[in-house]
Amino acid sequence: MPWEKRFDVDQTLVRAMEVFWSHGYEATSMQDLVDATGVNRASLYATYGDKRELFLTALKRYDGKVRQRLLDELARTLPPAEAIGAVFDKFIDQTRAPGGNWGCFIVNTALELAAHDREIAELVNIAQDEIEGFFLAMIRKGQQAGRFDASRDANVLAHQTLASLLGLLVMIRSRPDQDYLDAVRDGVLKSLD
Amino acid sequence: MPWEKRFDVDQTLVRAMEVFWSHGYEATSMQDLVDATGVNRASLYATYGDKRELFLTALKRYDGKVRQRLLDELARTLPPAEAIGAVFDKFIDQTRAPGGNWGCFIVNTALELAAHDREIAELVNIAQDEIEGFFLAMIRKGQQAGRFDASRDANVLAHQTLASLLGLLVMIRSRPDQDYLDAVRDGVLKSLD
Repeated sequence: MPWEKRFDVDQTLVRAMEVFWSHGYEATSMQDLVDATGVNRASLYATYGDKRELFLTALKRYDGKVRQRLLDELARTLPPAEAIGAVFDKFIDQTRAPGGNWGCFIVNTALELAAHDREIAELVNIAQDEIEGFFLAMIRKGQQAGRFDASRDANVLAHQTLASLLGLLVMIRSRPDQDYLDAVRDGVLKSLD
Repeated sequence: MPWEKRFDVDQTLVRAMEVFWSHGYEATSMQDLVDATGVNRASLYATYGDKRELFLTALKRYDGKVRQRLLDELARTLPPAEAIGAVFDKFIDQTRAPGGNWGCFIVNTALELAAHDREIAELVNIAQDEIEGFFLAMIRKGQQAGRFDASRDANVLAHQTLASLLGLLVMIRSRPDQDYLDAVRDGVLKSLD
């Protein structure tokens, strides 16, 4: 069938996502995307649109398949303190791989593009609100269970926990050092006790 | 004198710094730099070298004349809690200007370039260590004066304060909202009491 796509559309998107995530939007050329996916330029344009459209599709895929799925799984399977720690660990674990300081695709995008692109800023803000919402739910659950200090304002703590996570995702880009980053996670968990 | 420069070398560097700071390295073309400085391409190359060299010179100027100078002044003129709050306020104040979410040039650079450029990563790490050192000095001073809880580990608190500041500098790019950012500063100051 001549209209059948000759490549795996989702797998190609994952490869494009990895290039944008690790290198950023501006530093990625269409040729980089051709090289990473093994799909020619005309097919990429025909399937995903231009570079910005492909970037947005990749960012949305990351947000849904990576970020949301991770938080849902952690909330379902772990007690509150462990679930919060696991979000930090998910990124700290990157430091064990060589070149492993991609950080978070959404945070990298926030810094590179959100100040000048309202559509991207809104995507970033929704993702950050959902991460803060996850922290708030876990902190409340931990306070109710007597694991965390229930006299503290859970909203304030959730906002601080988000700020610390975003800070860690800045640190990891220039200093993928496990002890340096573990100290941030440990400080956050201690602040909730 | 034919060898006399026809433009103000430092003022031109400040304008180049502002373009890189607000838009990032990759999104800035040599033509953008020509437009922003009013200096032609040949003179920019002859004076500052290529785009990367001009960027590095601009980043070093920011680090010395903006970051170091600010911290020195705050440490000299304000009590500890006010000095720490003023670092956060310096960035939060950006939200009062239209388009005022440049954030911090060093943090923007950390996210965009530090993962793939060791020289830039080292500049970023030295700057972050000096900011953490400033927080540590202020926290110790506040603990000695009885303003902060002296039973807490000042090193842990300084590391958390740096992470929160870096997190705020992510937040400001997509959401230059004063209340949202004030809450981070207030949470940090409360954590020191």
